[in-house]
This record gives sequence, structure tokens and C-alpha cells, in this order.
Amino acid sequence: MEQNLFVYNTLSRKKEKFEPLNPPHVGMYVCGPTVYSDAHMGNTRTYISFDLIFRYLSHIGYKVRYVRNITDAGHLEGDAGDEGEDKIAKKAKLAQLEPMEIVQKYTVGFHEVMQIFNTLPPSIEPTATGHIIEQIEMVKEILAKGYAYEVDGSIYFDVEKYNQTQDYTILTGRNLDDLLVNTRTLGGQDDKHGKLDFALWIKAKPEHLMKWPSPWGIGFPGWHLECSAMSSKYLGHQFDIHGGGLDLAPTHHTNEIAQNVAACGKNPAKYWLHTNMLTVNGQKMSKSLGNSFLPHELISGNNKILSKGYSPMTVRFFMLQAHYRSTLDFGNEAMEASEKGFKRLMNAFSLLEGLKPSGSNEIEIQPLIDRCYAAMNDDFNSPVLIAELFEGTRIINSVHDGKMKINAENLQLLKTMMNTFVLDILGLKSEQAANDDLPKIMDMIIALRNEAKVNHDYATSDKIRNGLQQIGFKLNDSKEGTNWSKI
Amino acid sequence: MEQNLFVYNTLSRKKEKFEPLNPPHVGMYVCGPTVYSDAHMGNTRTYISFDLIFRYLSHIGYKVRYVRNITDAGHLEGDAGDEGEDKIAKKAKLAQLEPMEIVQKYTVGFHEVMQIFNTLPPSIEPTATGHIIEQIEMVKEILAKGYAYEVDGSIYFDVEKYNQTQDYTILTGRNLDDLLVNTRTLGGQDDKHGKLDFALWIKAKPEHLMKWPSPWGIGFPGWHLECSAMSSKYLGHQFDIHGGGLDLAPTHHTNEIAQNVAACGKNPAKYWLHTNMLTVNGQKMSKSLGNSFLPHELISGNNKILSKGYSPMTVRFFMLQAHYRSTLDFGNEAMEASEKGFKRLMNAFSLLEGLKPSGSNEIEIQPLIDRCYAAMNDDFNSPVLIAELFEGTRIINSVHDGKMKINAENLQLLKTMMNTFVLDILGLKSEQAANDDLPKIMDMIIALRNEAKVNHDYATSDKIRNGLQQIGFKLNDSKEGTNWSKI
Repeated sequence: MEQNLFVYNTLSRKKEKFEPLNPPHVGMYVCGPTVYSDAHMGNTRTYISFDLIFRYLSHIGYKVRYVRNITDAGHLEGDAGDEGEDKIAKKAKLAQLEPMEIVQKYTVGFHEVMQIFNTLPPSIEPTATGHIIEQIEMVKEILAKGYAYEVDGSIYFDVEKYNQTQDYTILTGRNLDDLLVNTRTLGGQDDKHGKLDFALWIKAKPEHLMKWPSPWGIGFPGWHLECSAMSSKYLGHQFDIHGGGLDLAPTHHTNEIAQNVAACGKNPAKYWLHTNMLTVNGQKMSKSLGNSFLPHELISGNNKILSKGYSPMTVRFFMLQAHYRSTLDFGNEAMEASEKGFKRLMNAFSLLEGLKPSGSNEIEIQPLIDRCYAAMNDDFNSPVLIAELFEGTRIINSVHDGKMKINAENLQLLKTMMNTFVLDILGLKSEQAANDDLPKIMDMIIALRNEAKVNHDYATSDKIRNGLQQIGFKLNDSKEGTNWSKI
Repeated sequence: MEQNLFVYNTLSRKKEKFEPLNPPHVGMYVCGPTVYSDAHMGNTRTYISFDLIFRYLSHIGYKVRYVRNITDAGHLEGDAGDEGEDKIAKKAKLAQLEPMEIVQKYTVGFHEVMQIFNTLPPSIEPTATGHIIEQIEMVKEILAKGYAYEVDGSIYFDVEKYNQTQDYTILTGRNLDDLLVNTRTLGGQDDKHGKLDFALWIKAKPEHLMKWPSPWGIGFPGWHLECSAMSSKYLGHQFDIHGGGLDLAPTHHTNEIAQNVAACGKNPAKYWLHTNMLTVNGQKMSKSLGNSFLPHELISGNNKILSKGYSPMTVRFFMLQAHYRSTLDFGNEAMEASEKGFKRLMNAFSLLEGLKPSGSNEIEIQPLIDRCYAAMNDDFNSPVLIAELFEGTRIINSVHDGKMKINAENLQLLKTMMNTFVLDILGLKSEQAANDDLPKIMDMIIALRNEAKVNHDYATSDKIRNGLQQIGFKLNDSKEGTNWSKI
């Protein structure tokens, strides 16, 4: 917490010194996925970015309560998320499953993807369906304050009325009149008084699957409401950081702020952080353009636009090589460059433990450590941090090759630096003992033994067989050669 | 579904033919963990048992909706789960965390344990806090039917009134008068009219952390209620299988049945299945006896009562070697026997693909397959199934050793049988390429090389170093010895 951290606040459109409301506590809310389909790459980037932020804040001493929700109801298909069919219920009908079976399937899948990329679980992972009561209570408050109105069992937020005393577009700084001109009038919106009004509570048609009783009849909450209700419940009316993908700022986050201000008079978060988009070879990633791929396809290489697969840590490293507020462009060449870079970094890392200190010293590590912190303190600038870690890599290689001398004190600093920034903060890990090494090593051992037998060196060949037996492997000789199995 | 499956029904105290209400659909509800501490061995056994049942029902063609809840509120400390402090809130106070942080920590941990033991995720995993409205609605129904009463903001179920027209002890067959005599009158129970009455809704004291508004004021649901509300929601008023640990039958499941019958006139499940207890060296496993250990301790061996650690699949195999309705006694000797048995099974399994069919045939596999199904159809008798699979193991080894001939047709049946029952139904998997083998093998290779050097056999020592280099491993020699790293 001694760090002089600056973060870019979408709200002020500038970098601000990070001063939490109740240090050493930090409350951070990040909008989670709607679990109606496989986790996609854009979300993956967003959650890896906030994992970096969570790890760094924790590292510098804050006690972070990180809340990331699961949207399991109420997210409709329309542009603003509150028109048309419920995304999860639609998928459930197609698959002839209960909506909560869809929720379970894709929540399990999302957690697997998060685990593969070594992101830490958030402190709390609340669901929309788990907070219907809290959402109903918030609708009541907004109604009581006069910022919402009921039409036939649905409740809408009155944007124009709100904007008379508050600034509806405070987050993006856009012009409200422009917004009004550019907003389409969609069918089914007839109940709304104003074009920008949005649903807080939606009356359920008889065939609607996910619905609950409320003071206004059977219905379900609007998508934007859950985040306001859950962030208030777990982080209070005001907390430190609210994050999400940049695409959420104009509507979802704008409406969240309006809901919170209307209900309890406060913009919920002091700092609003947004992650930028992914592109593929310079184009927006989208299913319709045929240039999208899923996280597991990126790992397996099983997609026509990928020339090969990349390990999970290569993907994480690739993502962290761009700043979270920059667009990140996927391409096979860029991925291959990251793969090489990650190997270079981890190879140096593996040499670190074996380095020997010298009596004399030719390199001071503290300035390098200071530059690593400076990079992270500049709005979590991971690409600059990685460049500094490559300086560490060069030092490790030079010392290892005997071209540079380092004393015990600086060697210890170098070890601490690499462990802290590579493992704890960037969240990278060695993929060293991957399962696919075992067959290669066994092949080598079998070749050694065969050679010993050819040379009539039966002492060695027996030693190999017995040694393997002791650690649980059996060699099976046959006409076709020797294969192995576990005992 | 052509199978002639019989299951032991606690309700009738006998084996009954399994005839689902709406074939090919099967609804199965299993009481899940209260997430206030690490997953314990007893729960682990219960969920591995129901995983076997889920896998077998799915294998024989049923479309199973398997619901297993997460209790994240309302489970109090008293014997009946509705007296004293909320288990999660108590832990939250001790750890100075929000209760939902406790819930998240132990839910993540529970899922990890389930994954380690290769249990499939259930179809739906609903939470108590996610179904407060449904629980309130059920309390209203029970009140309306006259089977509950309100005292100062709390609602209690009236067991004596219920028992006038229904059979409260139908599940266990115990005598109600005996129960009344043996039930202690606890402090704080004064609000209850009868000694066996239990809480449906509990008024929250001001300091209580997890509470919601209701028609009776601010409170929280009783522990037994959630399962009634969630099973009804996702499986309907009547479904096929309700499961859980045997310890849940006398109170939790007895009360669940009473709630469902009171609210909608139906015992919720046709078949009630219960898993038996774990013992350790013949004694009940309990913290106070100092003979308890956690799943990860059983794997690491890091507990004084364990002579060593056992792989996750060894543990799963050990558990499946007992029938789910038998007590299962842990002991180091029994575990070591299971470890050997599991290795024997998996070693034969690994030979299977390499077996060559013969023109003649000395063994018929179909009768063995029939016996495997017969075992599972006899109330999921996994120990008998495993004995049959060892017959398969003997056949595989005999064919492999050239002592028995098998033709192509029977070899194919043998492969199908082993794959189906070992992998799909028992849910075992090969641990062959486990990461922890790599260090052991590298140690052996380094020892071989050192010996070669001591014997001045530099050809061999260089061959080892170069061979490793080619497959991406580097040896680092120093005064302390030789270590290795990936290049």
C-alpha cells in the first residue's frame, strides 16, 4: 500500500491516484458472464485482466473483496439486454432442458476455462437468481424515489426524469440528445414512456420459464438491476472499483449508475475500469464474420483460422503483453512470437535456482524492481512489466553463462523479483511437467537400455529395468519392441 | 432401460424394481454439502456413490436430471439443524469475512474435491440463498394447509397435528412415542408447541448476518425447507430418487417428507436411497476421536493416522469396493490392498489395446458381461461388479501371456466391457501419466548418469545428457549434485 498506484478512471477519463475508501480494504465488482453458451475469448481477456488487477492489489497489501457475478436469468436478447427472449431460457427450449441445467453446464465450463488460465476465484460469485429479493427491494426503492413507473406489471426506469437532476451519461460523457436521436424504437417498447427508459422488472408472459412473484405480479428482473443489487449487498452503497468489458459502459454500466444513484443517492464505484476488445487479424471477432474461436480451440488449435494450438500459459502471456485498455489483435504470428517469449522467460526462470552468487557484483537489481513496480503502478501496465522481466531474463542468462557476476544480496533480490512478478502478479506458471513429456522420456530410457543390451552391458540394462520397477513402471518386451506400463 | 434394475428403498425397507414415473426421464435429488468447512470424507463417499448411480442410470439409457444442492444458509448448529448459530455465519465471524466469502471458498474447494475424484457435475446445483422466495412460498402453503404455526416472527411445523392424518416416521419406521421420549428439550425451543416441531422460517436477531424480508418479518429459512422447495422446483412434486447420507434419514429427510406432504399432499420421491457411514479402524470417524482426515490428506498422506498417501483413483476404487449401503472401514492395510487391486486392474486395462485376436477361441465374454450388468442391477452392487472385472483382468493377462486364445468377436466384447464398466460406470481413469512420476524418473536417470561417470563410462553419461537435451530437458551439475530443468 506504500505504492503510488494510478488507475485510469473511465468516469473522469484520466488516470487518478488510487485511494480506496476504507484502506486496507478494497471492494471490486466485475460484471461476470451470462451463462448461456461457452465462455468466449473476449470475456476470457476481461477476467484475466481483472485477475491481474486483483493479484496486484492483493500483493501490495490491500485486503480485496472481489465480487464477480454469474448472470443466470434476466439477460434478454435486445441491444440493451432487456428486449426479446431470455438468452438462457431460449437455449433451454432449444436443448429441451430446464434453464438451470443450461446455467449449470455453462457455469461449470466457465470455471474450467478460468482454471485453465490460472485466474484466481473471486471472493464472492453471486448469481442473479440468488438475489431476486434484493432486486425487488431495489425496485421498490427506485419507485419510492420517483425514478420509475409501472406499466401493466412491468417497472421501467425513467431516464428523462432522472437526467433532470442527475447526469445520466456521466460514465461515457456522451450527449443525451444524440443518444435519443440514435436510439431505435423497437417493437415491444411501447410500454416505455421514453426511448432510453429501461426495464427494472418485467412482467412474465405465461410461457416464460424463469419467473418469481413480486408486488407487481409474476415477473423477472431486468438485466442491469442484478449488478446494482449485488454490488450494494456485498460491497456497500459505495465501493472502490467497478470493472467490466468496455462494451458494457454505454448501456449496462450507465444504467447501473442510474439505478444506484436513484435508489441510494450514490454512484456505486469510485473508479470505473474497462477492458478493451479483442480483434482477429485486425477485424472485430464475431461469429458472423467466421473469425471467432473458443478458448479450448485456441489451446487445441482445432479451428481453421489457427495454424496450431497454444498452451494456456502462452495465451495468458500473450494477453498480458497488451495493456488491458488497448485492443488486442490475435494472429498466428503474434501468438507464435508470444510462445517464444514465454518459453524464453520460463527457461530463464528455471535457471534461477541454480545460479551461484559471486564475491563481486556487476549488476544492481533494486532499480529493476523499482521499474517493475512503476510499470504496475501506471494503471497495471503489464506489457511494460514484461519488458522489464525480459531484462531480468537477460541478467539470469548472463550470470548463468558466466558473463556477468552477481553477489548473494542481488541474486536474492533477483529471485524475489522474478517469483513475485512472474508467478504471483502475472499469474504465469511453469508448464514444465506436462504429461506429454513422460512418453518421450520413457522412449529415451528404453533406447538407453536397448543399447546396453546390444553392448552386453546387462548390469546397466537390469539397473534400468529394476529402477523403473521401483518407481512403479514396468517394461514389457515383445517382438515388436519394448513398451511400458504403470504397475 | 431394458435392464431389470432393483434398488433398495429405505421407505419400504426392501429392494424394489426400479420403475421411473416418466421414463425415459429420471429425476434424482441428492442433499449436497453445507459449505462452511472443507469437504469431508463422509460426504465424499456419498457423492461418489451417487455419481456411480447417476452414471449407471445414464448408461442404461435414462435421461437423468440430477439435482444436488449447496446449502449456503440456514443450516444451524443444533442436532436437528435448526437451533443455535448459522454454521456459515459463525465461520464468517471467526474469519472476519462476509458469509458469502466463506460460501465461495468452500464451494470452490468442494468442486475441486469432486473433480479430483472424477465425479460428474450434477445437472443442476441450486443454492439455498438462491431459493428464498420459493421457500417463503412453501411456508405459506404449509401455513394455509394448517400444518404450521407462527410464534413471534418464526414459523414452526406442527408434527403432532401432521401425524394425526399422516405418518411422520414413514421413512424410518421408528415409533413416534419413542422419539418423543428420547428428544431433549433444548433451551431456545420454548417457542415450539411440540418437542418434535421444527422451524420452517426463523426470525432473525438483529446481529444475524444472512436474512431476508418475508410476510413474517426479517428472517431466514429452516434448513430442512430448502431441499423440499428446490426438489419441487426442479423435479416436480413427485420424482424418482431422493438420496443422501444415512444420517439424514431420521431428521432431515423425515422433515422433508412432512413438508412436501403438508404443502402438496405427496411424498416427493418414489425411491429413497441412503449411503452408509465411514469408519476408521472400526471406529466412527470424528474430529473429537482424532481419527478424521480430509480428502487431500488422504491423497498426500499428510496425516498421522495414514501410513502414506493414495492416488485419487485408488481412493475412488477403494470406496467402490464396498457397497454403498455397507459401512466402509478405512485402514492403511485395506487402502494398500485397494492400491494393488487398482493397479492390477489398470495394468490389464493398458494391455487390452495391444491384444491380438486368434483364429480359435477359448473364452466366451458375453456371460461375463451379463454378470456385470446383473451386479449393477442388484442395487448398484459395485463390489460384485469389481470382482467380475477382475475375472476380465485374468482373461486379459492370460491372452497377453499366450496362455489363452480369444477370437476377434470376443476380444471386441472384452474391450467394450472393460471400457464401459471401468471408465464409464465406475468412473475410474488411468493415472498413468501423472505429473509426480516425472521427478522420480528424472532422479533415476540422474542416478544412472552419475554411476556411469563414476565408472568412467562417459559415452553413456554423455548419451543421457544429450538425449535429455533433445527432448527438452537440461541437466545442471553443481557441488550439491545435479538438478534438471526444461529448456
